[in-house]
Order: sequence, then structure tokens, then C-alpha cells
Amino acid sequence: MNFRNLVVGVNTLVPLKNGKLTRYINFDNAATTPPFYSVMQSINQFAPWYSSIHRGNGYKSVLSTEIYETSRKKVMEFVGADPMMDTVIYVKNTTEAINKLANRLCKDDKCVILSTLMEHHSNDLPWREKFFVDYVETDNCGKLSLEDLEMKLKKYEGKVKLVTVTGASNVTGYVNPYYKIAKLAHKYGAMILVDGAQLIPHKKFDMKPHFSNEHIDFVAFSGHKMYAPFGIGALVGHKKVFEKGEPDYKGGGTVKLVSQEFVIWEDPPYKEEAGTPNLMGVIALVSAIETLQKIGMDKIEEYENSLLEYANQRLSQIPEVELYCSKTYDRVSIIPFNIKNLHHSKVAQILSEYFGIAVRSGCFCAQPYIQRLLKINKEKILEFAKNPNLERPGMVRLSFGLYNTFDEIDTLIKAIKIIIKNY
Amino acid sequence: MNFRNLVVGVNTLVPLKNGKLTRYINFDNAATTPPFYSVMQSINQFAPWYSSIHRGNGYKSVLSTEIYETSRKKVMEFVGADPMMDTVIYVKNTTEAINKLANRLCKDDKCVILSTLMEHHSNDLPWREKFFVDYVETDNCGKLSLEDLEMKLKKYEGKVKLVTVTGASNVTGYVNPYYKIAKLAHKYGAMILVDGAQLIPHKKFDMKPHFSNEHIDFVAFSGHKMYAPFGIGALVGHKKVFEKGEPDYKGGGTVKLVSQEFVIWEDPPYKEEAGTPNLMGVIALVSAIETLQKIGMDKIEEYENSLLEYANQRLSQIPEVELYCSKTYDRVSIIPFNIKNLHHSKVAQILSEYFGIAVRSGCFCAQPYIQRLLKINKEKILEFAKNPNLERPGMVRLSFGLYNTFDEIDTLIKAIKIIIKNY
Repeated sequence: MNFRNLVVGVNTLVPLKNGKLTRYINFDNAATTPPFYSVMQSINQFAPWYSSIHRGNGYKSVLSTEIYETSRKKVMEFVGADPMMDTVIYVKNTTEAINKLANRLCKDDKCVILSTLMEHHSNDLPWREKFFVDYVETDNCGKLSLEDLEMKLKKYEGKVKLVTVTGASNVTGYVNPYYKIAKLAHKYGAMILVDGAQLIPHKKFDMKPHFSNEHIDFVAFSGHKMYAPFGIGALVGHKKVFEKGEPDYKGGGTVKLVSQEFVIWEDPPYKEEAGTPNLMGVIALVSAIETLQKIGMDKIEEYENSLLEYANQRLSQIPEVELYCSKTYDRVSIIPFNIKNLHHSKVAQILSEYFGIAVRSGCFCAQPYIQRLLKINKEKILEFAKNPNLERPGMVRLSFGLYNTFDEIDTLIKAIKIIIKNY
Repeated sequence: MNFRNLVVGVNTLVPLKNGKLTRYINFDNAATTPPFYSVMQSINQFAPWYSSIHRGNGYKSVLSTEIYETSRKKVMEFVGADPMMDTVIYVKNTTEAINKLANRLCKDDKCVILSTLMEHHSNDLPWREKFFVDYVETDNCGKLSLEDLEMKLKKYEGKVKLVTVTGASNVTGYVNPYYKIAKLAHKYGAMILVDGAQLIPHKKFDMKPHFSNEHIDFVAFSGHKMYAPFGIGALVGHKKVFEKGEPDYKGGGTVKLVSQEFVIWEDPPYKEEAGTPNLMGVIALVSAIETLQKIGMDKIEEYENSLLEYANQRLSQIPEVELYCSKTYDRVSIIPFNIKNLHHSKVAQILSEYFGIAVRSGCFCAQPYIQRLLKINKEKILEFAKNPNLERPGMVRLSFGLYNTFDEIDTLIKAIKIIIKNY
């Protein structure tokens, strides 16, 4: 199967600074991916049938409702959730999913949350104000310390409600040993959330059964990172967490009965999906899941790994390129790098304007992690706070999708060599 | 211009209970509308260019960012917002918009919110737990009492922070005199939010300048009720309300600088749009706005009014049909009714299964309003709370879109007559 044929826009020509057209190379898939053709087709085919769900009586409404509710089973199956114990709450993105869990997990402010020093802001900031949050250490390579995790679980003596950890880092691509983390968390009475935004599109994922000590309690992920960019994502996990109390967002669809005096809330997942749901997004998500399953997650992982290894090997041969402990670990197809004595934003800009290559540069919404990887001290960080115009430290990030090719990497390597020669 | 050619799926054939196919008639547009062809086309055309926004350097990212940010101007222009004073925050639906405002409007729990007894749950429940909420009375026809509004504004002696009112009721279709309400609100130092979900798709709307005492401080509306059903909506209003404090949802895109110790939040609207935005939804929304503007909102209103009047007139000639003060007021194209001695859910079911006509039945996410319109007392409501299987009171609702026709209304009238004869 030629993966390239599956994705919309892979052969688009874009103008360079000199006015010439070139075929666009997108190495920014960790931010968002273009849609699958199958996703576009699903949406176009469904459009004439699109209708209101849950409370409509018409044929199209009944059909739309059935498709919407059946989709939850497909999502559960995709991540190995338990249809009896778990629920699928549709959200717009992983960030919303994590905020939602943070708003619903425990009202008791004595709950301790263990996050880590390698998280995306979206798996750090939602927890900060509501809970006592502590952060599990990373080593010099930015790899999570399981020793520190266990030490902290012990230190808080059973008060840790949740260990929340990225499945794969959006900066370094490291895949965390989430089953080991789950085992540790459960041993000390905590649950685990895996932020799956960077993991789910790249590797087969299984929550494992609830009775397993390797069980993943919650996982969150986004359609826009897995070829279904239509404002959709999912939070999957324990139904019971959402049974008590009131939802964070309230309104249409969240209630069974309302009078002026009282409210009887709906059961989950309905009570957590306030307002008209994004059915088109769900159609897109399910279509993307089906295409990923048809290809096989193992095949995707294998191919993306080969891209990763090739790019790593080629980059490591260029002395001016700084890589960050890139070779040794299990990771998804992400490579952060810098060119010595050239600001990351400049590199990204030149790659775009002169070569038509899209990368991301900066801190990738994971500033504390980057600050540690680049060994930036507190005084320096305060300087950035005082002076927003200061050139910020950061990295250039390559992130591959299943449609990227070895040829594209060759083009990148050539470009980097030219940049090094000329700047 | 033939409006019917603009909308996807208007000629779909659906099976009836007897197995025959018939052309679907959708009279449930107040819940959600099918997409415009132009919306589908915009999405398909944009798909090859879809990319990450805000922090990407590639050509497609720059293009995507530009389209995303320019879209806010188009939304502002559509509702007459002030680009200097106001902001556009993209949300997934009106419900999210209102919850967001409720989470950000004032932290002071001494704030009083005046809602009304004719609101959708989404403009009632988000305010209840956070604030002291009082409800402006409606008369026997379900029409808002401006006298009671002023009395309550006086009673709370300048403590009312916001008067929050539907632009048009999703039950009766009544259009509220929002400029008069704005004048009253401002007179007593309050702001006004217009829930525009049912209004914006049907009538020209203008927030008017900030210096006007008729100025509308906030408006919220949904793409899925205006032919752009892609999980998108907007909250438009005072930028300054979102400047202080932290956003309700936190994460990627909401911050300028983060360290382990502190956070510097982004400016609005960015700080209120946590996570990757739904760019495809925005493309859809802007495309729908452009199509609506091309037709002309006045033309849409005129045509939908003629449908409304015709349906009202035909229905009022059937003695077994109960209408609810349907003729006398300014309203959008919504008609609630009942057939005497036949439960609303039964009527809706028969219309669907035997005639291929989609309507909605029940309480339309506005239970307190329906309870008052149907004069259901508190004891009865408590019975429903105790026994969820009890047949609930409610209505059948017709709601027209610009693509509905007089012929379709004739078919409905015939169907209703057959139902009355046979049940």
C-alpha cells in the first residue's frame, strides 16, 4: 500500500521566496496532520444524511444518532477500552479532554496529581490551580525517571489520585513506559492518564483490562493529529468518575429533568457533552481510525521508525547539527535539533522560504521541558518574562507522518547543508 | 436565487415504515441544519492547504494562520462587532460559548445574573451554580415581560452584572426586543448577552456601537444551526472581560511563557482557545456567512416569514391542532403545536415513519419554559423526577430553514389531517 496516496495535499506546489514553485514537504505532523482522502470522502458521503442526534424523530436523525453512538464502540475498540466500565467522551482536542478530567476527577483539594517534567502545557496547566501538583524528574536526556516516580508516590502516602503522563513526548518523541508507570501508580493507589496525542497516531495502543495492574485508566487523543482534522478528540476511561456531581460545562443534552428549582443530570457520556455534538468530527475520526486499522498500526510504526532512523543517521553525520540523545530510545517519529550558532527560528524560516520545507521551531508548548533540556536557569527564564522581545531558546523539530518519504529527508539534508554553508 | 439548490441532501429519499421511499422533509432546523454546498466545497478546496496555525513556519501554516485570523474580522463584520473593543472566541457551539462567559465574567460571587423563564437550558444552567440567578417573568403566551425585567434590575440595585436573554426562543420562535432590553440593562449598569443560536441564521443582527445604549455586549451562536455543521461556533464581545485572570480551559496556545513556577497568559482571544483550534470548522463557518450574506439576511427573513405565516394559517384551520399564541408576534420560523388527545412523541413518530417528515417533540432543552407554557405545576414536575418512565408533557415543533417550501408544508398539513382521522 502506498501511504502517500492516502493523504490529501501531499503533492501541493508552494511558492518559494524567489517565486519558483516547489513541492511542499511537511515535517510538522506533530502539530497537525492533513486529512486522509477517506476522511474527506466519509464527510462528503455523509453530508446529505447529516442531522440532529439524540432527540430528533426523523429518519436522518435516527440514522445520525445510531452512527454517533456506534462510533463510541469503534473508538473503544481502537484503544482497547472496556465497554462496560469505560466511557468515550467526545471533545474538540486533547487539551479539552485533560481539562475536563481535571475538572471532574476529584473535588477534594487534598488530591495530589503527579505530572512530569516532560509534559506538553496541556498536561500540566490544567492541573496546576486545582490540585497540589508535583513533577516527576527527567534525566539529562529528558527521559522520565521511574525511580523518582516511585519515590514521589511513596512520599505522598496514598494521596496521589492520578499520575498523568504523556504517551510520547511532542518534543523528543520518547515513548514513556506507560505500562510500568501504570503498575507503579496502581501499587500506590493512584490512577493513570496517558496523554495520547502524540502516541495514538503512531503506535498500537491498548488500555488493557481493568483487572490488569498494567491497566491504563484514561487516555486522551485528538483527531487532528491522526488525519481527521475536524475539531474532534476523545477522552476514554472510567465511566464512574463522571457519574457523580455536575459536569464542568452545562446546558442542552446534559440533563434528564430541569425545573426552576432542581436539575437531574444525564448519565455519562451525555452529561459531559454539552450542546450539539460535532457529528461531522466523529464521522471524520471513525473514518481515520478505520483507515489506520486497515493499514495496520504495526506497519505504520515500522515505516515511521525507518524514516526516523534514516533521518537520525543522516543528521548525525553533519557536525554542525546538534541532536539531543536521539538514538537510544523507543520513540515516535520526532527529531528535535539545532544548527550550531544559528537561531532555531531562523533555520525554520529559511527551510520554509527557500526550500518549501515546513518544520516547527521554538518550545512546542512544552516550555519547562525545553528549559531543562537546554539547561536554561531560572534567572534566564525571568529575563524572558521581563523582556518578551528577547530571542527565545528552543529547537527545530521534525515530525514525520506516514506519508513522508526518504526522498523528502534527502531534500532536507541537502537544505541543511546549504544553510550551514551560507549562514 | 433558488435557496433549495444551496443545501446538501434536500432531495434525499428515505424509507417509510411500509418500505416505500419518499423525499425527506426536514422541519427540525432549529436543532441543526444540513450544510450548504458552498460549505462542503470550501472544506474540500481547503483540505490540501490545511496546516497547523500560529506557531508553524511552513507556507501552508502561514496561509492557514492568515485565514484563521482573517476569519475573525469576517465574523465581527457579520454581527457588527467593534474590531478594537471586541474579540471573537471560537467555540464548538453556543453552549460552550455561554459556559465560557459564565466562567470568566466575574469571579465575585456577589454578581447577580438575570436570565429569563424562556431560555434554553444552555442559557440557564451555566449560570446557576456560580451566581445568584433570577429569572425574568414571561406572560401567558411565553413572551418576556419588560416590566418585570426593569423591576428586577431595580430590585438588585446595580448588582446585576449581566442580563442574559435568548435572541429568539427555540420553543416559540419569539424574537426578544434585545435593543430595548439592552437599553434597560445599561440603564442599571448591567451588560447584555444575546444567545443568538436561533436568531443569527434567520435575521440580520447588529451589535451596534459600544457608545450606543442599545449596544449588545455579547452574542453567541453556532455554525451547526447556520448550514456549517462542523463543530464550530463563536462568542463575540468585550475583549477586556477576557484580559484579566486565567482562562477556564488551559494548555497549548493559552500562554506566553511558562516555567515550573509561573505562567504568563496569552492575550484574548488566544488564551480562551486552548489546544489546536478547529480550523476546518472556521473555514465552514466563514463560508456559510458568505453564502448567507450573498443571499441577503433580509431575503432569508422575508422568505422564512412567508413559510411561517402560511404554515400558521393552514394549521389554525384544523380545530384539533393546538397552537400557542402563534400569530401575533415577531418571531423566527418556529411553530410549536399539539394535536388534541395525541401525545407529542406519537405525532412526531407517525410523521417520521409514515410520511418521512422530521420534526422534534418534547421539551427542546427548555423544560422550565415548557412547564410554564403548558401550566404544569411543581407537584407534577416532582412526579416526573420520581418516575422517569412517566409520559412527559411537551409539544411538537416545526422549524423551517431557508430551503423548506410551501409544498412541504402542504404535505405536512395532509399528514396531520390523516393522523387526526386515524388515531
